[in-house]
Amino acid sequence: MTREELVSQIKKKSSFLCVGLDTDIKKIPPHLLKYDDPIFEFNKQIIDATSEYCVAYKPNLAFYESHGSKGLESLEKTMEYMPQDVFTIADAKRGDIGNTSSLYARAFFEQMTFDSITVAPYMGEDSVKPFLNYDGKWVILLALTSNKGSKDFQDLKIAGTSTKLFEEVLKTSQNWGNTENLMYVVGATKSEKLREIREIVPNHFLLVPGVGAQGGSLKEVAKYGMNKDCGLLVNSSRGIIYASADHNFALRAKEEAIKLRQEMEQYLNAYL
Amino acid sequence: MTREELVSQIKKKSSFLCVGLDTDIKKIPPHLLKYDDPIFEFNKQIIDATSEYCVAYKPNLAFYESHGSKGLESLEKTMEYMPQDVFTIADAKRGDIGNTSSLYARAFFEQMTFDSITVAPYMGEDSVKPFLNYDGKWVILLALTSNKGSKDFQDLKIAGTSTKLFEEVLKTSQNWGNTENLMYVVGATKSEKLREIREIVPNHFLLVPGVGAQGGSLKEVAKYGMNKDCGLLVNSSRGIIYASADHNFALRAKEEAIKLRQEMEQYLNAYL
Repeated sequence: MTREELVSQIKKKSSFLCVGLDTDIKKIPPHLLKYDDPIFEFNKQIIDATSEYCVAYKPNLAFYESHGSKGLESLEKTMEYMPQDVFTIADAKRGDIGNTSSLYARAFFEQMTFDSITVAPYMGEDSVKPFLNYDGKWVILLALTSNKGSKDFQDLKIAGTSTKLFEEVLKTSQNWGNTENLMYVVGATKSEKLREIREIVPNHFLLVPGVGAQGGSLKEVAKYGMNKDCGLLVNSSRGIIYASADHNFALRAKEEAIKLRQEMEQYLNAYL
Repeated sequence: MTREELVSQIKKKSSFLCVGLDTDIKKIPPHLLKYDDPIFEFNKQIIDATSEYCVAYKPNLAFYESHGSKGLESLEKTMEYMPQDVFTIADAKRGDIGNTSSLYARAFFEQMTFDSITVAPYMGEDSVKPFLNYDGKWVILLALTSNKGSKDFQDLKIAGTSTKLFEEVLKTSQNWGNTENLMYVVGATKSEKLREIREIVPNHFLLVPGVGAQGGSLKEVAKYGMNKDCGLLVNSSRGIIYASADHNFALRAKEEAIKLRQEMEQYLNAYL
């Protein structure tokens, strides 16, 4: 999906919501366990219930790989079921030497037709570039993550500069891609940092995890993170997909998605 | 596999060779394509031919994931086929927030019974710790990689210290695990740096990729990297598994493994 198409979807749906498909067999409603593939069945019903209100879906690979090849089959079926008009994110946090990253790109962009993949920056340019060689496909590079461990290295100051490691990642990586094929992961729980981040990357899209369960404020994210094309995808996983563990789970997911979309619509009207 | 068992295997086989199972359907001998699962068949024959001369196998996940769930099935079969006495490394370079890393740990340590997994350090302590909660299982943390992009961030000097980012990773992570459950990836092409690295982590095992195709010198690695328990696993992938693309590929792989083992035996005798 191109940037133009993504922005058009955001405007059409008045939403920059991404629904995280962190589908855990232990948390889905028990009545789904009678299906051949309960994980796929859950995803299918979540997608049917929420696709009108979100612009993106983000399956986290760990949830599928923890079931081995069967789990990957559930993901493949989910990807085949995806509506054409949503942006899909493989939350895989990959990154390896060049020829290996090329194979991961093949896995996620050709084998499974994701629009984008999250990538870890530690191994540098040649580990990221192979993912940038596809028209209409995106790298979402980890810059500042929302977990406690982000302080261990991402916040370290680089000698001879006034920048921290995550800022260095933002600066350096702009030479590798552009605003049409490169986004950044920016943790919502540090929304005070969004203003600084927008000084470095004013035009790129940001994927903001952690609104909801991880405690970030959607309002602050919208206020300090939005740019002229919106430039935000805000993720919610557990708050939507596990709103209920009962027969009404899809309906409850829909209600939570609608709530977030309504709030987002206000911010789009106010700041765009 | 415990450290004691690994060291005992190294002494028994006079080898610290790791064979990288970077199995690419485009590079395996064409006569294998007639099998139901050519990738598994190739791995099986490589394992049969080389397991006497190496102590570890390292499948790189990208090569399997690029074939989707079918590729993961080939890997699962390969893992079931592994001899008991070899150390297995999932070269997966994973790392995510805590609850997600726990699922990756389940995928690689329970679903597939790997002894170890390579992990990227960018997200810090809570992204690494879930992998350290298993008896006899290991994290192999990326410190200094052998690719060109390692210069982009790993070599950056940290303000107020005399250390580079990769040295900071070595120092900080020693608080997370110990020499019984934590190893480091250290690129062979920087063997001049091994002496400095050994000052920071004298007792940990190091996984050294890139002897052979990536151009590192085994002699220098052994000279500057070995500790009293050997403390090294040196990987070769392409140089062994693609020594021939003909019917004799397993025999040629065996010959290359024997060559490396012979050289390793000399160094074990000289430096241990």
